[in-house]
Amino acid sequence: MDERVVDTIVARVLERLASSRGNASSLMPQSDNGLISEDIKAGRVPIGVSARHVHLSREHHAILFGADSQLTVLRPLKQVGEYASEQQVTIVSPVGRCLGPIRVLGPLRSTTQVELSLTDCYGLGLKRLPPIRPSGDHRDTSGITLVGPAGSITIAAGVIRANRHIHMHPSQASVLGLRDRDVVAVRIEGERPAILFDVQVRVAETFRAELHLDTDDANALGVKTGDLAQILRSDRL
Amino acid sequence: MDERVVDTIVARVLERLASSRGNASSLMPQSDNGLISEDIKAGRVPIGVSARHVHLSREHHAILFGADSQLTVLRPLKQVGEYASEQQVTIVSPVGRCLGPIRVLGPLRSTTQVELSLTDCYGLGLKRLPPIRPSGDHRDTSGITLVGPAGSITIAAGVIRANRHIHMHPSQASVLGLRDRDVVAVRIEGERPAILFDVQVRVAETFRAELHLDTDDANALGVKTGDLAQILRSDRL
Repeated sequence: MDERVVDTIVARVLERLASSRGNASSLMPQSDNGLISEDIKAGRVPIGVSARHVHLSREHHAILFGADSQLTVLRPLKQVGEYASEQQVTIVSPVGRCLGPIRVLGPLRSTTQVELSLTDCYGLGLKRLPPIRPSGDHRDTSGITLVGPAGSITIAAGVIRANRHIHMHPSQASVLGLRDRDVVAVRIEGERPAILFDVQVRVAETFRAELHLDTDDANALGVKTGDLAQILRSDRL
Repeated sequence: MDERVVDTIVARVLERLASSRGNASSLMPQSDNGLISEDIKAGRVPIGVSARHVHLSREHHAILFGADSQLTVLRPLKQVGEYASEQQVTIVSPVGRCLGPIRVLGPLRSTTQVELSLTDCYGLGLKRLPPIRPSGDHRDTSGITLVGPAGSITIAAGVIRANRHIHMHPSQASVLGLRDRDVVAVRIEGERPAILFDVQVRVAETFRAELHLDTDDANALGVKTGDLAQILRSDRL
């Protein structure tokens, strides 16, 4: 069966499981109405802080965890079908510095990707700092070594610092007047308030409104997952 | 001799030494003209990234490094009279996690102070996160254990996350129309651009224009010491 079909089915099952908790009627398809909260109408989206993590290809997963192993769900993430797995790896930089354990996020992907903060990169002693990239864009990226319980791999590319981005469902994008790949700014009233620019909008059926910040942005502002950010329509003030 | 008099003399000597490099005439008092660059006229100030560091009281320095020891200068800082010393300590949190070696900044002060980033605090497993404070303000702060080559101390208070602040000479503040303790915003075009709010202005004769950001702010934006920030007159947009 095509891998994308499998991923789609897994996503749908997890979506139903997540939404069925304590609500039998939610086994019916979710109406868009549930996605359009008062916060969304006012342009406010919850923050999701992304600590360093890895995505694995099927091939690399088999090497790191064994040919017969499977990713197991630790907890579902807000984006439908995505989850923090129970599996973790350690990464080792070209100068021999280690960082880990680092969580593997599921489901498996077509290409292995390692997402680090700039603080992580300095800690690893990376001489060539990973570029800031949207997930999946591995142009001009370097590699690193990943070590799991069953083996290790050294990837030639795929280490990125994730760009600031907001996931949203098409109905939420519509309310906000935004389209996939738009670039906006966000205002955040954390302990140390700021406006962050260069925030990419990403729209998909499985997405739910959530601003993903890495731990450097989150710790600079003193915010946690669930805190709110105000979308500013322009990407420049 | 009064400790403040000593500090003042040390500051003056270091100021002359710093400014006399390759310029014999600068042993004369520096004119304010040298402080008013084109950048300052345009409201631009250089960034100085402050990694975690400690300031020590004379008493605590003697315990950590020995009664007869002295701080020795590794390199002068931009603020006149201040320097990174060759001395370093390790700090140990109440749950037993260590961080170090951490640089001691000179000269000695009346009170010991430990300045950490939020990332540092999480790494140390601090249950009660240190408040964001201007240097010297230890209201509602907690303590930590410092370990040096000659001994250790556990302070009851003095661990802070430093607030965002800009040092400047009175002549620079005058050009910018700012006063001591004003609060401004700064716009920074780093790798990940942002406007940072709640930036405190500090004016003193020994100060030179420099925006001090901790490593969380610096790494969130992808900036380094020497990069420029644009002062926005208002603290709120």
